[in-house]
Amino acid sequence: MQTIVDALASIVGTAHVLTGADAAPYAVDWEERPQGEPIAVARPGTTAEVAAIMRLANETRTPVVPISGNTSLAGGTAAKGAILLSMARMNAIRDIHPSARTAVVEAGAILSSIHDAVAEHGLIFPLFFGARGSAMIGGALSTNAGGSNVVRYGNTRDLCLGIEAVLPTGEVVDLMRKLHKDNSGYDLRHLLIGAEGTLGVITAAVLKLHPAPLAHATAMLAVENVNDALGLLNQLQRRTGGAVQAFEYMPRAYIDAHLERFPDAREPFSESHAINILLEIATTRPDEAQPGNDGQTPIAAHLEAALGALFEDGKLIDAVVAQNETQRAEMWARREAAAEVCRLHDPIIVNDIAVPLDQMQTLLDQIAAIIAAHDPDALDITVGHLGDGNLHFSCWPSTEDTAVHDVIHSEVEQATIDLGGSFSAEHGIGTHKRDSMTKHKNPGALAAMRAIKTALDPNGILNPGKVLPDA
Amino acid sequence: MQTIVDALASIVGTAHVLTGADAAPYAVDWEERPQGEPIAVARPGTTAEVAAIMRLANETRTPVVPISGNTSLAGGTAAKGAILLSMARMNAIRDIHPSARTAVVEAGAILSSIHDAVAEHGLIFPLFFGARGSAMIGGALSTNAGGSNVVRYGNTRDLCLGIEAVLPTGEVVDLMRKLHKDNSGYDLRHLLIGAEGTLGVITAAVLKLHPAPLAHATAMLAVENVNDALGLLNQLQRRTGGAVQAFEYMPRAYIDAHLERFPDAREPFSESHAINILLEIATTRPDEAQPGNDGQTPIAAHLEAALGALFEDGKLIDAVVAQNETQRAEMWARREAAAEVCRLHDPIIVNDIAVPLDQMQTLLDQIAAIIAAHDPDALDITVGHLGDGNLHFSCWPSTEDTAVHDVIHSEVEQATIDLGGSFSAEHGIGTHKRDSMTKHKNPGALAAMRAIKTALDPNGILNPGKVLPDA
Repeated sequence: MQTIVDALASIVGTAHVLTGADAAPYAVDWEERPQGEPIAVARPGTTAEVAAIMRLANETRTPVVPISGNTSLAGGTAAKGAILLSMARMNAIRDIHPSARTAVVEAGAILSSIHDAVAEHGLIFPLFFGARGSAMIGGALSTNAGGSNVVRYGNTRDLCLGIEAVLPTGEVVDLMRKLHKDNSGYDLRHLLIGAEGTLGVITAAVLKLHPAPLAHATAMLAVENVNDALGLLNQLQRRTGGAVQAFEYMPRAYIDAHLERFPDAREPFSESHAINILLEIATTRPDEAQPGNDGQTPIAAHLEAALGALFEDGKLIDAVVAQNETQRAEMWARREAAAEVCRLHDPIIVNDIAVPLDQMQTLLDQIAAIIAAHDPDALDITVGHLGDGNLHFSCWPSTEDTAVHDVIHSEVEQATIDLGGSFSAEHGIGTHKRDSMTKHKNPGALAAMRAIKTALDPNGILNPGKVLPDA
Repeated sequence: MQTIVDALASIVGTAHVLTGADAAPYAVDWEERPQGEPIAVARPGTTAEVAAIMRLANETRTPVVPISGNTSLAGGTAAKGAILLSMARMNAIRDIHPSARTAVVEAGAILSSIHDAVAEHGLIFPLFFGARGSAMIGGALSTNAGGSNVVRYGNTRDLCLGIEAVLPTGEVVDLMRKLHKDNSGYDLRHLLIGAEGTLGVITAAVLKLHPAPLAHATAMLAVENVNDALGLLNQLQRRTGGAVQAFEYMPRAYIDAHLERFPDAREPFSESHAINILLEIATTRPDEAQPGNDGQTPIAAHLEAALGALFEDGKLIDAVVAQNETQRAEMWARREAAAEVCRLHDPIIVNDIAVPLDQMQTLLDQIAAIIAAHDPDALDITVGHLGDGNLHFSCWPSTEDTAVHDVIHSEVEQATIDLGGSFSAEHGIGTHKRDSMTKHKNPGALAAMRAIKTALDPNGILNPGKVLPDA
């Protein structure tokens, strides 16, 4: 009898089926946690090959786990005993249409490659996060990745016009349309985006591009509390015509931890503040981007004027505007070091949570109370995308007692839910948050998700054990 | 045995079940086409009542057709022999959260009521189309309605953060979250939006609001061809920082027809042009909205400067900027009269189509060739949302021969598909376009839609005969 490995080789070629030591690197995730060993790693080169693999898997009831950049933070690609379907070879950037502002890409295209390719046309694909040098668009779509510019451009799903995917049965869904309006039946695109590869394998997409900003104005802001910050954000949005690209939260404890990790870094302000915000606005307007005689761009002058007015209102307690690209880079380096700063301490308690914008201060207050109640010496170094209501709760406990870690984690999650929030803002469910799905997801929604999963994947072979908890 | 009508009365109260003459007005659509008579019209007042009706219908295998403002253009609410579920009583605007820029509304809330309610807070819900005085948000969500501001704010689905719906089994899906990031399982919100009430009855939603513009600048533009228009649009987007709110297409034949219907109206330009575009930009920036000594706002001056530069490039052949609110209203009245102008002539051939932005000129050329081939004396008065690649093809044939009408309709549709377009841009499928689904929708996508429909509505009772063609 032909083995699965032989059958895979007959589809993609022997060179593109990895087993044993060759497959071993795929058995750990990005954070080097063991994920279990796959049967084999298959590296298809075409959508037809993906479809053939899915038909094989469906007929033989063999689990398939799609993987692109392997930068999941939620165990979304654990593949013990499964065919690991690597999209890495399908990495073409097929077409860029500058006047229509679209790009046609394959699932294995790396984000930074897409960024580079569209930059040549004065355009951006505005999906930016730390792992952009290895994350692939297929994974970003499958997890509906967020990042630092969601406040301006939306999540990954908002940047995708068309999609192609292979269903668990091997059927190809071709919705590769470059359209801004297409009301022709159920929106399968949005169903497949964010499904974490459990409903279909995304093989290609049409991306929506935006004009590249000609100039940025970047600042560090300090406020008394997050309600003031929301007021500031709304004022800045009005005063800049919606030009805010990033509005990122860093508490004092994070600034301290950053300085510990990077001793050559500088304090953001001459004084120390409890709440530090990285603000960036950007413009595509030539008249706002051309530096004046003083070397300052009109957009930077406009930002300084807006901040001056807000300062007089008393809501803003300190502000520093980057005077050049070096200072801008310094501000971003501080924020983007978060993953590295977090690794300074083990254990760490983390939650990727979101609440309505007007509930952020209440959530922060409740988090402080939870920590005070269970581990008052713990250090809360939570950073977040304040403009999206999204916190990456990160807490260094003072104790090794995992019962304490668990209670903090679960009370922070419950506080989030009680404020109308989500226990999974942008990292997805994977294997890590299935219990939270059981506890917190609306039962009617869970039942509908299960019905859809069964309808599209009757044999349960595609990325089993992810997203949906056992019934 | 209790009849369906009695059972409905026991759920919603006798006063809220209409039959016979009381139900008759519901048996015609907005364009006064007969839709078939329902068994009864039920007017629930709560989500629990909707759920009880769905359970009754599911147990008794009685079709249910949800209806809100009855402004469908696609026969989406034809209800012969069905319970017609009117959402009109569930019209509360429950909450507005100005700082978080969200509104919580029930499905029966009329669009213009939502507009008025949020205006008090300096905010807009930017979904604008002709029927806004009677269309309800439940229907707008169910059809993912478009309109005139999609180029800036997106379609209805882009303006919805959370949703509540009752599934065909009576189960309630509660996803009423006011979140900008929520990756917790499959995106049922986007699946229910645009499903035209065939997968669930939308009962409430969380809407995303935007700051109200403080000033508009509106102009009529004339160009040689639509490729030039696309270049203009891209230039204007860059030069205004993405402030374009509307970019609407009107050909010469439409201008003539408009003048025929409204003899007191004026020509848009002193000279006659083949391609006329209504452009509007808007600003929330106080510094751009304050009129100067000459009475002109900076945004209007900025637009005039931008148009001046484009004129010198030779892509723009004429332009008139509205000098006051009256002139702005006149420009909009010309465009918004389209539905009324179309009624001047019967028969009319219509297609609601979209193509990629860079294929618009080719599509217009092909449409001209199709008309020339089959009915050279026909008058093409197509208007459209050029910024979205969306044309409302409208043609007055010179012949009564329906075979000619059909061939023009079907060749325009085929040309659209061949250019990578959609046969249904923003009006939906309803009953009218099911044949086009069969002809043009990707078979893999159709199969997946059918599987999802069966999974969520195993007895096929919710809005049967809509969207999906018979297998």
